[in-house]
Amino acid sequence: MMSSSDAAAKPWPVNAWYVACTPDEIEGKPLGRQICGERIVFFRGPDGKAAAVEDFCPHRGAPLSLGFMREGALVCGYHGLAMGCDGEALDMPGQRVKGFPPIRAFAVIERYGFIWVWPGNREDADPAKLHHLEWAESDEWAYGGGLYHIQCDYRLMIDNLMDLTHETYVHASSIGQKEIDEAPVHTRVVGDEIHTMRHMENIKAPPFWRMALRGAGLPEDADVDRWQVCRFSLPSHVMIEVGVALAGRGGYDAAKEDKASSIVVDFITPETETSHWYFWGMARQFGIDDAALTDTIREGQAKIFGEDLDMLEQQQANMLRYPERRLLKLNIDAGGVRSRMMIDRALEMERA
Amino acid sequence: MMSSSDAAAKPWPVNAWYVACTPDEIEGKPLGRQICGERIVFFRGPDGKAAAVEDFCPHRGAPLSLGFMREGALVCGYHGLAMGCDGEALDMPGQRVKGFPPIRAFAVIERYGFIWVWPGNREDADPAKLHHLEWAESDEWAYGGGLYHIQCDYRLMIDNLMDLTHETYVHASSIGQKEIDEAPVHTRVVGDEIHTMRHMENIKAPPFWRMALRGAGLPEDADVDRWQVCRFSLPSHVMIEVGVALAGRGGYDAAKEDKASSIVVDFITPETETSHWYFWGMARQFGIDDAALTDTIREGQAKIFGEDLDMLEQQQANMLRYPERRLLKLNIDAGGVRSRMMIDRALEMERA
Amino acid sequence: MMSSSDAAAKPWPVNAWYVACTPDEIEGKPLGRQICGERIVFFRGPDGKAAAVEDFCPHRGAPLSLGFMREGALVCGYHGLAMGCDGEALDMPGQRVKGFPPIRAFAVIERYGFIWVWPGNREDADPAKLHHLEWAESDEWAYGGGLYHIQCDYRLMIDNLMDLTHETYVHASSIGQKEIDEAPVHTRVVGDEIHTMRHMENIKAPPFWRMALRGAGLPEDADVDRWQVCRFSLPSHVMIEVGVALAGRGGYDAAKEDKASSIVVDFITPETETSHWYFWGMARQFGIDDAALTDTIREGQAKIFGEDLDMLEQQQANMLRYPERRLLKLNIDAGGVRSRMMIDRALEMERA
Repeated sequence: MMSSSDAAAKPWPVNAWYVACTPDEIEGKPLGRQICGERIVFFRGPDGKAAAVEDFCPHRGAPLSLGFMREGALVCGYHGLAMGCDGEALDMPGQRVKGFPPIRAFAVIERYGFIWVWPGNREDADPAKLHHLEWAESDEWAYGGGLYHIQCDYRLMIDNLMDLTHETYVHASSIGQKEIDEAPVHTRVVGDEIHTMRHMENIKAPPFWRMALRGAGLPEDADVDRWQVCRFSLPSHVMIEVGVALAGRGGYDAAKEDKASSIVVDFITPETETSHWYFWGMARQFGIDDAALTDTIREGQAKIFGEDLDMLEQQQANMLRYPERRLLKLNIDAGGVRSRMMIDRALEMERA
Repeated sequence: MMSSSDAAAKPWPVNAWYVACTPDEIEGKPLGRQICGERIVFFRGPDGKAAAVEDFCPHRGAPLSLGFMREGALVCGYHGLAMGCDGEALDMPGQRVKGFPPIRAFAVIERYGFIWVWPGNREDADPAKLHHLEWAESDEWAYGGGLYHIQCDYRLMIDNLMDLTHETYVHASSIGQKEIDEAPVHTRVVGDEIHTMRHMENIKAPPFWRMALRGAGLPEDADVDRWQVCRFSLPSHVMIEVGVALAGRGGYDAAKEDKASSIVVDFITPETETSHWYFWGMARQFGIDDAALTDTIREGQAKIFGEDLDMLEQQQANMLRYPERRLLKLNIDAGGVRSRMMIDRALEMERA
Repeated sequence: MMSSSDAAAKPWPVNAWYVACTPDEIEGKPLGRQICGERIVFFRGPDGKAAAVEDFCPHRGAPLSLGFMREGALVCGYHGLAMGCDGEALDMPGQRVKGFPPIRAFAVIERYGFIWVWPGNREDADPAKLHHLEWAESDEWAYGGGLYHIQCDYRLMIDNLMDLTHETYVHASSIGQKEIDEAPVHTRVVGDEIHTMRHMENIKAPPFWRMALRGAGLPEDADVDRWQVCRFSLPSHVMIEVGVALAGRGGYDAAKEDKASSIVVDFITPETETSHWYFWGMARQFGIDDAALTDTIREGQAKIFGEDLDMLEQQQANMLRYPERRLLKLNIDAGGVRSRMMIDRALEMERA
């Protein structure tokens, strides 16, 4: 359990936007969710706008998330205190609530199909710090995704996504293939992002990409060029440009009709020091009107990320057993290592 | 885990009678149950009288509650040590048990359909301190009840029962109704009890009370007067006089044939600092020969108290997350606040 | 969780051979198992020989036991590091592994149908210290057994097996009988073993031994002489010679055709301070070609040892609740008491 007093020692920046939930999760009812160590309840206020306050009724300490919505007020399910979007009690049967102590409210933005929360002080929340996500706004992209709750430090997930050599082993039957291991990896800082990338030429597509080639109307058994460009940005987003193009047509830069490409979308939201919420999905530019394809891809991703889940949770458990051990930082780990350095700098700035 | 050495700091009086179990729970076999932090095994001795000793075999530490009864002796199921009602070993195959260290015995009384235990020193146990329960002895009452194990401080259950405004929210579909919230509540000390009460006039009965009106041979859709009189007494009993009478016939004081009234019986026995045994039931003066009605009421209560259970356990979990928070003490909370003051005074007296 | 630094304070000798697993458990795949506080992965190396190393990949800390075998190398399932039998990384795609820090390797022997591990320093491992088990090598014996994971200190299991009076209570319906209690027990040191024994004459066989008499082609309702000779040896093995002979034919020393005798085999491998792996079985000299009898006996033992399991786990839980209590050491406990003294001396020698 954490209390806010020792927040400074937590391994996540708090002055940043994290994905908290999707709109369907607060449809007509509140949602309780722990984010960056804070117990928060999310709901829609009277104007329909998403709101977030501490999940703690100032009357008797019941979780407000057990309550219900009444005309945009969050009503405690124990004794009926009605809570507003700013953490001030609105009313309560038979009571004057003016003197009630407020609870903490959190800054929230709804954009790109997600509810985003700023776990730091509400006054410091800066909407301009929310990334622009082109794929979420453009008609030329289709998106599908899901959510996993994973029992490991959110940074182990960043490491995982910034070193895709694990695909060969963890995802051998879907997206893994021997050529990933063998292709050199390049890592560099690009503006406020870390990029780590791999290019493979004249290979056969593994099962997931055969499915994608079919979805894009291309021959699934053709020779292809394949690429992976992993892009980390603060606080903990990893966008991975992935795709295959018919061999020799320019790979990553091939014309749209010669490739199946997409962005693996990963929003990684810390819950506690050893658990996180993993919002995963795929944004694609092929077959964008094909809802069945969206479902097929979602199912494929759900299975693939389920494979990561087991490995990551057991890695976390093992690291807790050997707290004194130092892990290796190989060239393939550079993406994760640099991403963590960027997080550490953000933490230092928050502490200063 | 608690040890007896720090018992002084525990939040429950030990020199008092708590309900430990019902007779059926020690029918032909021992019962292990933790009460006020003590692991205790209950059984019937050679004279048929209920007895209680520590649930710890002095031979090898096995729980005696895993054993069996043999002619009024509690025989350890591991190596056959026979334990007596006073904590002295009676015999053991091939052993002289005279020098065996005794284990602690607890004072026990069987009365009113319950086995009561005194967790403090056996020598201090005072049968006169056991409350008189008229409904449990009189032919004019029928009783049915049950037992729940709840993961919260027993005092949160006292708060719950001494402020019935929660019925409107937690029990909206059975006994809750808006008029409870709106009726003023009065709290006062009456002898060694705390009373907190509400009266509602000219209202419609909610579903549970419609069922009771039918059971009492009264029209279920009549206008009624409704009352709730919650009575707390040490160490942690809450008797709630509840009922509905045909409107204008005197309410609480109406003639027997014009009302359906009963006592909600609540014996709240601490297990640990954050868990308790909740013996709930209802004693009624209508349809007392109707066994099917007893079952119907028991099922209704079981469902209603199951709703409290979830809320209370989550309230407890939330309070453990925010240990530094102080909760509000509103007028509606006066019953619980005063009951806790009475408990605190009893604790101070025990420490003095 | 334990770290190797405080291994000196652990309640088990580490310079000894413990049963780690059976060959089928490492058939074509690695097996992760915690033994004497150490997380170890067992597998077969390139020569088919059993091997054991820490269950911790030096690259990113994933458990190696989640990986797979490739030509005798244990390949990490996360990023493909291949680990050798000596704890040195063999190779990894795209990496030079020479400078990788080694992990700890453990000495292992496969013999008698078990894989044995030496949790202490590999250099100190002494194959000569492995006991000779005649029944495991001779054609005149048949063996069947199983494995239980039990949540108690391994020494409580030793106590259990070195005092069979518990059979009368815990195993009343199979091997228990009143005469066990009543027969005197003798305990003595025999070389580097502790022996504790009982002989019963002219009794009726209990159900398990009736089945064994039938299996041996003898009348199940005959009067018999019965014996139990429990033999403890370091670090934590208990071999129990048990049997029944037709009454008056010499008991333990009766001719083979007049008795049904066997050895209850117990290898007790500590996992943590409060849990262990219990490899149990029975080696017998009757009906040795009767595979169905082996299955029947295994099922019977599985049920019997399942009864111990529950008692032992609850005994452990009770002792943790009363850490300050001292248990009795009666004459019937002498076998366990002396076995523990032998363990304590071994621990002192290791510390010196």
